[in-house]
Amino acid sequence: VPTSATAVPYPVWGWGAPGQEPTAAELAALRPLLTASLGPLAEPSWGGLPEATPSRVALPDSLAALGSSEPVDRARHALGRSYLDLIRGLSGEVGPLPDLVVRPQREADVEAVLDWASASGAAVVPFGGGTSVVGGVGPVPEAAERPLVSLDLALLSGLLELDRTSRAARFAGGTLGPAADGALKPFGLSIRFFPQSYERSTVGGWIATRAAGHYAARLQHVDDLVESVRACTPVGWWESRRLPGSGAGPSPDRMLLGSEGTLGVITDAWLRVQERPTSRASAAFLTPSFPAGADAVRRLVQAGLAPATCRLIDGAEAATTGSLPPGADAGSALLVLGAESAVGPVDAELAAAAELVQDAGARRLPDRSDAGGSSDAGAAWRDSFKAAPLLRERLVLLGVLVETFETAVTWDRFAALHAGVTAATEDALQAICGGGRVTCRLTHVYADGCAPYFTVLAPARPSAEAEQWRQIKAAASDAVLAAGGTITHHHAVGRDHAPWYRQQRPAVFAQAQDAVKQRLDPHDVLNPGLWAAGGMH
Amino acid sequence: VPTSATAVPYPVWGWGAPGQEPTAAELAALRPLLTASLGPLAEPSWGGLPEATPSRVALPDSLAALGSSEPVDRARHALGRSYLDLIRGLSGEVGPLPDLVVRPQREADVEAVLDWASASGAAVVPFGGGTSVVGGVGPVPEAAERPLVSLDLALLSGLLELDRTSRAARFAGGTLGPAADGALKPFGLSIRFFPQSYERSTVGGWIATRAAGHYAARLQHVDDLVESVRACTPVGWWESRRLPGSGAGPSPDRMLLGSEGTLGVITDAWLRVQERPTSRASAAFLTPSFPAGADAVRRLVQAGLAPATCRLIDGAEAATTGSLPPGADAGSALLVLGAESAVGPVDAELAAAAELVQDAGARRLPDRSDAGGSSDAGAAWRDSFKAAPLLRERLVLLGVLVETFETAVTWDRFAALHAGVTAATEDALQAICGGGRVTCRLTHVYADGCAPYFTVLAPARPSAEAEQWRQIKAAASDAVLAAGGTITHHHAVGRDHAPWYRQQRPAVFAQAQDAVKQRLDPHDVLNPGLWAAGGMH
Repeated sequence: VPTSATAVPYPVWGWGAPGQEPTAAELAALRPLLTASLGPLAEPSWGGLPEATPSRVALPDSLAALGSSEPVDRARHALGRSYLDLIRGLSGEVGPLPDLVVRPQREADVEAVLDWASASGAAVVPFGGGTSVVGGVGPVPEAAERPLVSLDLALLSGLLELDRTSRAARFAGGTLGPAADGALKPFGLSIRFFPQSYERSTVGGWIATRAAGHYAARLQHVDDLVESVRACTPVGWWESRRLPGSGAGPSPDRMLLGSEGTLGVITDAWLRVQERPTSRASAAFLTPSFPAGADAVRRLVQAGLAPATCRLIDGAEAATTGSLPPGADAGSALLVLGAESAVGPVDAELAAAAELVQDAGARRLPDRSDAGGSSDAGAAWRDSFKAAPLLRERLVLLGVLVETFETAVTWDRFAALHAGVTAATEDALQAICGGGRVTCRLTHVYADGCAPYFTVLAPARPSAEAEQWRQIKAAASDAVLAAGGTITHHHAVGRDHAPWYRQQRPAVFAQAQDAVKQRLDPHDVLNPGLWAAGGMH
Repeated sequence: VPTSATAVPYPVWGWGAPGQEPTAAELAALRPLLTASLGPLAEPSWGGLPEATPSRVALPDSLAALGSSEPVDRARHALGRSYLDLIRGLSGEVGPLPDLVVRPQREADVEAVLDWASASGAAVVPFGGGTSVVGGVGPVPEAAERPLVSLDLALLSGLLELDRTSRAARFAGGTLGPAADGALKPFGLSIRFFPQSYERSTVGGWIATRAAGHYAARLQHVDDLVESVRACTPVGWWESRRLPGSGAGPSPDRMLLGSEGTLGVITDAWLRVQERPTSRASAAFLTPSFPAGADAVRRLVQAGLAPATCRLIDGAEAATTGSLPPGADAGSALLVLGAESAVGPVDAELAAAAELVQDAGARRLPDRSDAGGSSDAGAAWRDSFKAAPLLRERLVLLGVLVETFETAVTWDRFAALHAGVTAATEDALQAICGGGRVTCRLTHVYADGCAPYFTVLAPARPSAEAEQWRQIKAAASDAVLAAGGTITHHHAVGRDHAPWYRQQRPAVFAQAQDAVKQRLDPHDVLNPGLWAAGGMH
């Protein structure tokens, strides 16, 4: 690994487990591909361990065993997983660390910590897996003068109850994706919710951020899986009744879904779970262009035929990951459809979908039989999906500015949004980085619209990476909002999206949010200042 | 029509249009069936027109043209469509009438009325189609001393915009079901949302009350059809961005969905619409018992095979509507499955569903070829579903206490809820009416639970009907909550369900609701007191 990157421990800034650190050989092998695409890359310059200011606060004796003021632990809890976070971690310029990391061992500890914080003036940022890519964990500039506690739910983990009749399971808020799914496996059940952060994100985090899984159609957001939620707020416990559906007043769960740690700490939740699929089939297609592919996907989903996996990837992006067939036009797009079922064969479902997209101009690609022996385009796609965070950090070490951003938009505005956002981002890359590439795929599809997901690659200027990205992101975000999109479909708001979120949300709704915040968190303990409408307190 | 029922005009208390009033001959024909089932019925005694107290308020000149103080108009706006409302209408004991009925002609009128009410101390109850069966329109006992305005949205009606690409349509809040669907029909589209109140309820009312359509599976509640909402609150307009999906903070729409006129007046909304179905098929089955049928339905929906129509009706209820085949055991249950599609044949879908329920013990009934020439069990069922409100008022005129109530519960608790609620309601009927019948069907099904819908029939005691029903309803509601159900799956809360809603909702969520109410409606103009947690103002 080049330069002084290892001065900050890999588990602090890196995605993988210790041992998965990028090697110099790996980086050397990647470099030519990148320079061929992006031009020369400047050698980045990294820093050392962040300065660990002394912890400004101590827990009362009754809670002291839960707290850690160990500097590396604190540094890890100051960082999410965005490009900005990677840069902060590698450069050692993390900013203020939380004064304490506190790990409740039982539900009552959460209440005690919030009580203590309310009384002592500390601010608390709930921390699930720390996989936020939008500044959802880390420093709280709005409360810089107050002691800051990172409340890590890791020890509140596991399957707490299983109702096989109703196909629902209660998980502790800090349960990681693989632990949740693994606990269901002996029962033939699956959580069937796989955000890209799956391995490192938690049930409570999914709910707090309205995460979306990798399935393109049906049950996209965790919202639809939530049967009830239990959360500790500064004024008491909030627990909704387990119900399959209800019309009794506004949904309590929907007020917590997306609350991003501002109203309460989600300690457990009942989720709807699924039978494990027993049959799968997938197929890949080439569409004449990205917009033509989007049109095919639109027809598919509006006909009710969209299979669980339905990803449209523009030619440039597909070429980058090696999934575009040789000789295919770079202006074309790759469409991967994958059906799965727990109750029977899926061939008919896939065939109906294939027929429709072929009628819409897509050309079916031959099934792959690659080196791994897999003929499953869906499986190949899932592997690269899962490995993306590891690849990303390797690019960063080579001096590439690499980040993604995503939105959702109704179909009538999709083409203009795609063109407008691509152009605005390319212009920004040209002005700020002297070049770079913007590619797009559709990650989720709905009858009335879709979720375009953009990837940016550019040569970064050493030590200016963060500022470069902030400017590019601002240009892209302005273009997203102007084109009628949402500032986020599934990455959440956090501090990074807050300026655009404030523009996007109805102003009266912002007033309502502020009123709720003030009532439930009168001492402004939880994530202070996060998207406050202003004028509160 | 017997006695003095016609002293109150039919359009005030009756469901149908003038000309659809029950005739004496109709009633005479029904009576023997009812007495055979319920025993002797006492002749009810009805009253005259409600006393129209003088209107206590006048609109300013600029709004005067929108207001009506005509007594019959006011009486109509004091009544919903519950059994209690029918009794109130027929008896003439309607209670206090609204002082004015105000019909905005344009969006700006809504704002002007709310501004005037905020300044003058009047209370405002938004009125869509007036089809509430839970005390959602009518007198406001919590603000009896204040002038009361019924804000009727009838003139804010129609299809305002259509986005065929995204399959979404913007409707004015006061648009009735048939008008909404009719406006889409020339485009081959349908609203495909058919609550039992469809003919007389409005788009805005559906959203305000989280209504559910008659389809059992998928898109049950209007929640899932809403793409964006525009509402006038006392502190300003609230309009969400049209989006197919979003993870940007808690959903603003979900705070308005189910707000039942307490936060704002819904003036228009974008709804997701559907292609009109071109193929339909249905089949009827007999299951050995109601619980056995529920088990079959559970397996169906958990396998992802539940067709759009999926109604399980217990034997006693099916016999009442003449849909139980001759010789069938009264302890059995009727299961009606109906598939439909806009893109292709549905025979395979129906066959897969039929195979599964037959494996689960259901016996397929021969297709019907009844007098009308219809062999479509689904169509027969829809006809009786639509006519139910008309039948109900005929029963009431004959002295029958007849009402429905509904809930939703997870599958693990379904059998105990069904048994417990049936027993508690039967006990109450025995004690209060000296007998009567409780039957049940499932109206909506989910992977994790279902929505049981109960019908009560009993001999009513003349002039004591309202008090009798209140006692029965209280016993039933207590049993519903004790068994883990919701006080309502799709009838909404209103004033009738408020005591149980207060028990059901999380206490901290109630605090949040109060905080929002105080911030958005500081003068407590909209539906004052409706489900207030107490302690406000």
